[in-house]
Amino acid sequence: MSKSILVLNGPNLNLLGTRQPDIYGSKTLVDLQAECVEKGEALGYRVDFRQSNSEGTLVDWIHEARNRYAGVVLNAGAYTHTSIALMDAIASVGVPVIEVHISNIHQREDFRHVSYVSKAAMGMICGFGFYGYSMALDALVNHLRH
Amino acid sequence: MSKSILVLNGPNLNLLGTRQPDIYGSKTLVDLQAECVEKGEALGYRVDFRQSNSEGTLVDWIHEARNRYAGVVLNAGAYTHTSIALMDAIASVGVPVIEVHISNIHQREDFRHVSYVSKAAMGMICGFGFYGYSMALDALVNHLRH
Amino acid sequence: MSKSILVLNGPNLNLLGTRQPDIYGSKTLVDLQAECVEKGEALGYRVDFRQSNSEGTLVDWIHEARNRYAGVVLNAGAYTHTSIALMDAIASVGVPVIEVHISNIHQREDFRHVSYVSKAAMGMICGFGFYGYSMALDALVNHLRH
Amino acid sequence: MSKSILVLNGPNLNLLGTRQPDIYGSKTLVDLQAECVEKGEALGYRVDFRQSNSEGTLVDWIHEARNRYAGVVLNAGAYTHTSIALMDAIASVGVPVIEVHISNIHQREDFRHVSYVSKAAMGMICGFGFYGYSMALDALVNHLRH
Amino acid sequence: MSKSILVLNGPNLNLLGTRQPDIYGSKTLVDLQAECVEKGEALGYRVDFRQSNSEGTLVDWIHEARNRYAGVVLNAGAYTHTSIALMDAIASVGVPVIEVHISNIHQREDFRHVSYVSKAAMGMICGFGFYGYSMALDALVNHLRH
Amino acid sequence: MSKSILVLNGPNLNLLGTRQPDIYGSKTLVDLQAECVEKGEALGYRVDFRQSNSEGTLVDWIHEARNRYAGVVLNAGAYTHTSIALMDAIASVGVPVIEVHISNIHQREDFRHVSYVSKAAMGMICGFGFYGYSMALDALVNHLRH
Amino acid sequence: MSKSILVLNGPNLNLLGTRQPDIYGSKTLVDLQAECVEKGEALGYRVDFRQSNSEGTLVDWIHEARNRYAGVVLNAGAYTHTSIALMDAIASVGVPVIEVHISNIHQREDFRHVSYVSKAAMGMICGFGFYGYSMALDALVNHLRH
Amino acid sequence: MSKSILVLNGPNLNLLGTRQPDIYGSKTLVDLQAECVEKGEALGYRVDFRQSNSEGTLVDWIHEARNRYAGVVLNAGAYTHTSIALMDAIASVGVPVIEVHISNIHQREDFRHVSYVSKAAMGMICGFGFYGYSMALDALVNHLRH
Amino acid sequence: MSKSILVLNGPNLNLLGTRQPDIYGSKTLVDLQAECVEKGEALGYRVDFRQSNSEGTLVDWIHEARNRYAGVVLNAGAYTHTSIALMDAIASVGVPVIEVHISNIHQREDFRHVSYVSKAAMGMICGFGFYGYSMALDALVNHLRH
Amino acid sequence: MSKSILVLNGPNLNLLGTRQPDIYGSKTLVDLQAECVEKGEALGYRVDFRQSNSEGTLVDWIHEARNRYAGVVLNAGAYTHTSIALMDAIASVGVPVIEVHISNIHQREDFRHVSYVSKAAMGMICGFGFYGYSMALDALVNHLRH
Amino acid sequence: MSKSILVLNGPNLNLLGTRQPDIYGSKTLVDLQAECVEKGEALGYRVDFRQSNSEGTLVDWIHEARNRYAGVVLNAGAYTHTSIALMDAIASVGVPVIEVHISNIHQREDFRHVSYVSKAAMGMICGFGFYGYSMALDALVNHLRH
Amino acid sequence: MSKSILVLNGPNLNLLGTRQPDIYGSKTLVDLQAECVEKGEALGYRVDFRQSNSEGTLVDWIHEARNRYAGVVLNAGAYTHTSIALMDAIASVGVPVIEVHISNIHQREDFRHVSYVSKAAMGMICGFGFYGYSMALDALVNHLRH
Repeated sequence: MSKSILVLNGPNLNLLGTRQPDIYGSKTLVDLQAECVEKGEALGYRVDFRQSNSEGTLVDWIHEARNRYAGVVLNAGAYTHTSIALMDAIASVGVPVIEVHISNIHQREDFRHVSYVSKAAMGMICGFGFYGYSMALDALVNHLRH
Repeated sequence: MSKSILVLNGPNLNLLGTRQPDIYGSKTLVDLQAECVEKGEALGYRVDFRQSNSEGTLVDWIHEARNRYAGVVLNAGAYTHTSIALMDAIASVGVPVIEVHISNIHQREDFRHVSYVSKAAMGMICGFGFYGYSMALDALVNHLRH
Repeated sequence: MSKSILVLNGPNLNLLGTRQPDIYGSKTLVDLQAECVEKGEALGYRVDFRQSNSEGTLVDWIHEARNRYAGVVLNAGAYTHTSIALMDAIASVGVPVIEVHISNIHQREDFRHVSYVSKAAMGMICGFGFYGYSMALDALVNHLRH
Repeated sequence: MSKSILVLNGPNLNLLGTRQPDIYGSKTLVDLQAECVEKGEALGYRVDFRQSNSEGTLVDWIHEARNRYAGVVLNAGAYTHTSIALMDAIASVGVPVIEVHISNIHQREDFRHVSYVSKAAMGMICGFGFYGYSMALDALVNHLRH
Repeated sequence: MSKSILVLNGPNLNLLGTRQPDIYGSKTLVDLQAECVEKGEALGYRVDFRQSNSEGTLVDWIHEARNRYAGVVLNAGAYTHTSIALMDAIASVGVPVIEVHISNIHQREDFRHVSYVSKAAMGMICGFGFYGYSMALDALVNHLRH
Repeated sequence: MSKSILVLNGPNLNLLGTRQPDIYGSKTLVDLQAECVEKGEALGYRVDFRQSNSEGTLVDWIHEARNRYAGVVLNAGAYTHTSIALMDAIASVGVPVIEVHISNIHQREDFRHVSYVSKAAMGMICGFGFYGYSMALDALVNHLRH
Repeated sequence: MSKSILVLNGPNLNLLGTRQPDIYGSKTLVDLQAECVEKGEALGYRVDFRQSNSEGTLVDWIHEARNRYAGVVLNAGAYTHTSIALMDAIASVGVPVIEVHISNIHQREDFRHVSYVSKAAMGMICGFGFYGYSMALDALVNHLRH
Repeated sequence: MSKSILVLNGPNLNLLGTRQPDIYGSKTLVDLQAECVEKGEALGYRVDFRQSNSEGTLVDWIHEARNRYAGVVLNAGAYTHTSIALMDAIASVGVPVIEVHISNIHQREDFRHVSYVSKAAMGMICGFGFYGYSMALDALVNHLRH
Repeated sequence: MSKSILVLNGPNLNLLGTRQPDIYGSKTLVDLQAECVEKGEALGYRVDFRQSNSEGTLVDWIHEARNRYAGVVLNAGAYTHTSIALMDAIASVGVPVIEVHISNIHQREDFRHVSYVSKAAMGMICGFGFYGYSMALDALVNHLRH
Repeated sequence: MSKSILVLNGPNLNLLGTRQPDIYGSKTLVDLQAECVEKGEALGYRVDFRQSNSEGTLVDWIHEARNRYAGVVLNAGAYTHTSIALMDAIASVGVPVIEVHISNIHQREDFRHVSYVSKAAMGMICGFGFYGYSMALDALVNHLRH
Repeated sequence: MSKSILVLNGPNLNLLGTRQPDIYGSKTLVDLQAECVEKGEALGYRVDFRQSNSEGTLVDWIHEARNRYAGVVLNAGAYTHTSIALMDAIASVGVPVIEVHISNIHQREDFRHVSYVSKAAMGMICGFGFYGYSMALDALVNHLRH
Repeated sequence: MSKSILVLNGPNLNLLGTRQPDIYGSKTLVDLQAECVEKGEALGYRVDFRQSNSEGTLVDWIHEARNRYAGVVLNAGAYTHTSIALMDAIASVGVPVIEVHISNIHQREDFRHVSYVSKAAMGMICGFGFYGYSMALDALVNHLRH
């Protein structure tokens, strides 16, 4: 089995650290990438870390995981709440996908309480800031071991 | 009038044959393309067959049909249920567009019962598997003859 | 297997050609029957063609298909949107039923966007005028051949 | 033009006088028929007065009005609130149809506040008991004179 | 008992004849007043005819009917759909109030399908143009005689 | 008082034993009739047992119970969820009506959770298979004794 | 198998006979207990009869049925409409649970039309007063015999 | 501060002048660009004018405004009603964004009455045709001056 | 054509400058009037500026515009969201009406997201503070010139 | 600070004592005024007591409280449920406003369960008849003392 | 009649003074108890003051009021919005129950706007802090005197 | 700061291992407790592990955490979806609370998609089986260290 994990970030996450720091904190996407790579290494996995503002690109990348990655950690950002295409992609690829959100989306606007991603992902983690990504990697590797 | 028809496929349809075969069957997109081209030839039309996971690309392609294609057969996949942009594109191009779905979308989740594409397309065909594409080509050519 | 197909028409379709010609065209139910019989013959099937304004009679006729017809083409008219009894009948008879509508029901009033028939029928065709019946017969025979 | 008017009564109106007299009063359907015939005569019209518990029969009768009656007075009873088939029949026949209810349906259960008949009928009269039928005949004849 | 009837007209009805003639016709409020007074005289009643664009004034006038009028004919215009105050006024005055509308409100926008006035008025007449006022006066006097 | 009970069955129940046996079991309507007649005899009552696919016929039969039956056991099938006409018939006849369903309708599709019949029937029994009819007969006779 | 049945009563049922006698009758919970015990004896079962106003206690008692009772008759009172915990308990215990209500809950306030208990219980009986408990015991024993 | 303004146009606006001229007029996107550039010059600002059918590209462009433009005028077309990603982008960039629509979106289909863009944009202008863009540029510059 | 424009202000706008300055700013209605008059003069129009807390008075004033004003700028305040009477008045007067709001109403409570005024007004401007009135006057005059 | 309190009554309260005495009791508005004045005197405050059927007048009067009254006791009657204008007025005046209702509005029709006044008033008292006004005056003075 | 009043407090009210002081103030439940006892004495009644986090216990205590207390003052806390069991208990006990809330629940989250307690309690007081309890005791004693 | 963590389990979790093993797995609550204690020790914390079927007891235990525990891990089971009391308790105690669910609740019935607990808890973890508890303990300790 592949020893690589794909970490995907959706729209506006490239602005981390500059955007609404009261919600998302002041660290940047580069910081987050470093944390993920480091965590992956500790778990014995290589982490590929990407971000896109395009729904179609995120679908493409999830498809790419089919034969090349052991699993996916996905923060789909705003597309979480509107993209049936992402949900279908997750249901189609046959590798475990874990949903993560930096903030607790249930404490924000009503339209952020609905998640199409949750209908297909293995599990969901939200509200723990950047640390949620480490938790997701940890859970994914734990799952792969069983 | 153009003797070409554009057949467009939306997100995740590139995974046909590998994705949820209980719903979509085991034949692949390449098989489907072959069936469509063959059917087109039998009807006296060239078929251009494309697939994209990007909503914007599908909008672009529908626009492209304006002056170059006699009509469009569209399986918009998940964007069927969420894309007002696609609906507007169909309403704008001035060539007939026929909506097709492989499965009977009314027998799946509630959010698949709403179709923005249906509000602008000439007609809709669903539940007949790959054969629905042949039916759509047939109906389109029948329409063009009258 | 039976070589007969039952084509059923629901309420108000007896007025075809006189009723709202902008929606339904100017040809009559007799014209439609002729088209269906002719199409059936071309496909090697006898077509029985009926119309009723009564929900109960339509249920009776679907039951009748159980042992005597290879399949049913059903335009349930207004009962499409209100009749759970028809839906149950379709689910009970064990022969394929194809739903057809002359107009694209998704472009009319909201209450015509819900179809109980769709929850049980094999597939649905709408928006192609009388030609939709030929498409349905064609799809039914194609299905019976596989 | 025909000098006959068709007065149609829907389900359970045959029990008038015995059913829930606090809502519908104690006079019977025969009494109502007599009042309508008398009113019709005073207006110079013959009144045909019928009742059925079957939705399909009511649709049939409305169709019958097409070439044979100057107009229809319709109390569709419970079908008022559930029958799109009746609505379509009214929209198809090309003679004026006036909706009447004995009670004020807006003061009863919520599901009686919706009327499909109202979406196609010329006008509506409710809450005036049997006298509403006389008013409907009067309004119909007034309409026919203009 | 008083031999006077109060006919009340709500907002924008002063523009009758100039406003949306496809819906309301080309006769003016003065024409309507004349028709009502004449009809009243034929029935043996004096008709007081008023119009106001103010919800509060309409409430005041309904209160005024308490001791001085045999009944009220009310076309509350747009307040029909928004005014609980008018509904309460009708329920409080103890004289019969008949609701009338020139157009068939059930065939217009959804927000015109709800009537607070209907929850308290004796009966409702809609869709008969100006003639609906004559019908209402007739029904009111018929009611007063019984 | 009459010593006869009317047991009425609605649409598609004539297919019992052949239709969806996982929901309705494998015994037929004839079996059910035999059980009901036997149970009736044990309780000292004659049981008349009927089935119709027509809403209007069911309304007619409930009316028939007025002077000729001690009570009604009604499984209205799909009309349970759509027929205000049946509800009104039950409310009008003045004999006790008991609602019965073979399956537990609350565990099926959402549109089967609403029952117009329940708004007028004395009581409801569901989920006990054919035995529910015996329970209903038992409860009806117990009620008639008090 | 255990020859004991557990009959559970939810909140406010301890006030039977004193509370809203127009809905619940004038007999007390002690009377009901006696009827259930007697019925149980006639059926060859010991009946344990309990009441609690606490949701948690009712959940505990349903759990207790797992190894010690042949089945449960449950009138969950107001918790019927609000307790997912009770629903889960019923789904977990692996013994048949029959839902019973003294009144016909479908004829009361809207919030009493929803039952979480119905989503997990074998069947439901309502509207037959105290006799519904006897019916439930009878149905439970009939079920255990098959 | 930058002396450039970014004017962004969403899906299907490239078809202006050809698409539904009753709604959008007959002038083209090139005409609109010329008007905006000219207005910008009059106000002392350079106008960059772009159009894309891709939601992701529009998000990218809004991000681009962060350090390089004084503000954004945005007609998001159909994405107005479906894109939380665009809303988040606007909330993140820290430059003023003004929403503009050519038609009055409140007078079109219901699904065009909801605007995610409005939840984050400074203000909204709709219904004034192409002139709305000039108004938006004017308002933006007025805002920047204060 | 008249060279006068009517600027109308609805309920509570007389408290401008004292009421919720975080939403509405600290300038008063008198300041706003001065700005509007000045802007009107610059455009070659006389501006009549009024305020009322009464829905009926606002309807009266809109009617007054029929023959005496070239157009209306309307900030209907809270009546924006509740007044069908105002909507009807705007649709009746035959002069252009432009809707303006000081704040961006889409960023406030949900009940402020619905605007009856928008269903009839030519266009809408919101979120630009007092400057929105100048924009409205500008757009109105631009419209009158074409 | 002012030693005067304004007690305001909305539509139809002038009919107190004559209107629906089962809900509102048999004492009149004059009786209520006397009770309020007396209570005010006992508390050391002058009470101004008014009633209007006009929403606009009630808004005017609340504005009047700004500089001249220590607080307001408001029974807005039917406008409670429909008037955003009143809510805005309360939020704007900067003096405490206490909402009072004679009946318990939560036990009446559904549309009386929504209160716009409650969204801005300090507190609410309902269901205590006329005594609720005394309670409101008492609470207001208690509040002013702290 | 009993000279004792029962004051009941629901979940989390034991944390008063420590919990969200911006909403509930800084005084504790012990302070509140002292105020209630003192107020009771002034009114000639003994006050029993209790708190529980258990819905079942609150139901038990309301039952206890039946024969032993003159009335109940109830702050049901969060159970106000979810407990039909409490509503039923209040409707069953036959002593007056007054609902009180420290904050104005209509100005908090939507799910706090619904009160089952209000459907059965005599009256409701909210938004007056601890003083609301004194008002409730006062209103209760006033009620008992009449 | 305390070096103890409270792990709380809600209704029906005592049946783990016996209840619906397809959803919850076959390990028992005792197994889960062992895993949590072991994980706690590894993190340097003592874990107190409890289960209750009573909403009130869970509220009590959360209160207990105020001064005695460093944080809480809460699987509220069915109360997650119905208990505002639990939400208020979490918001009141001033220690971090982490919500955990064994299954992915978003893939089950609709009523399990709403979580009152999520509105107050720091973060949420679901879909990872028992391992979710370890993740929660890990996240809690990570949070306490920052």
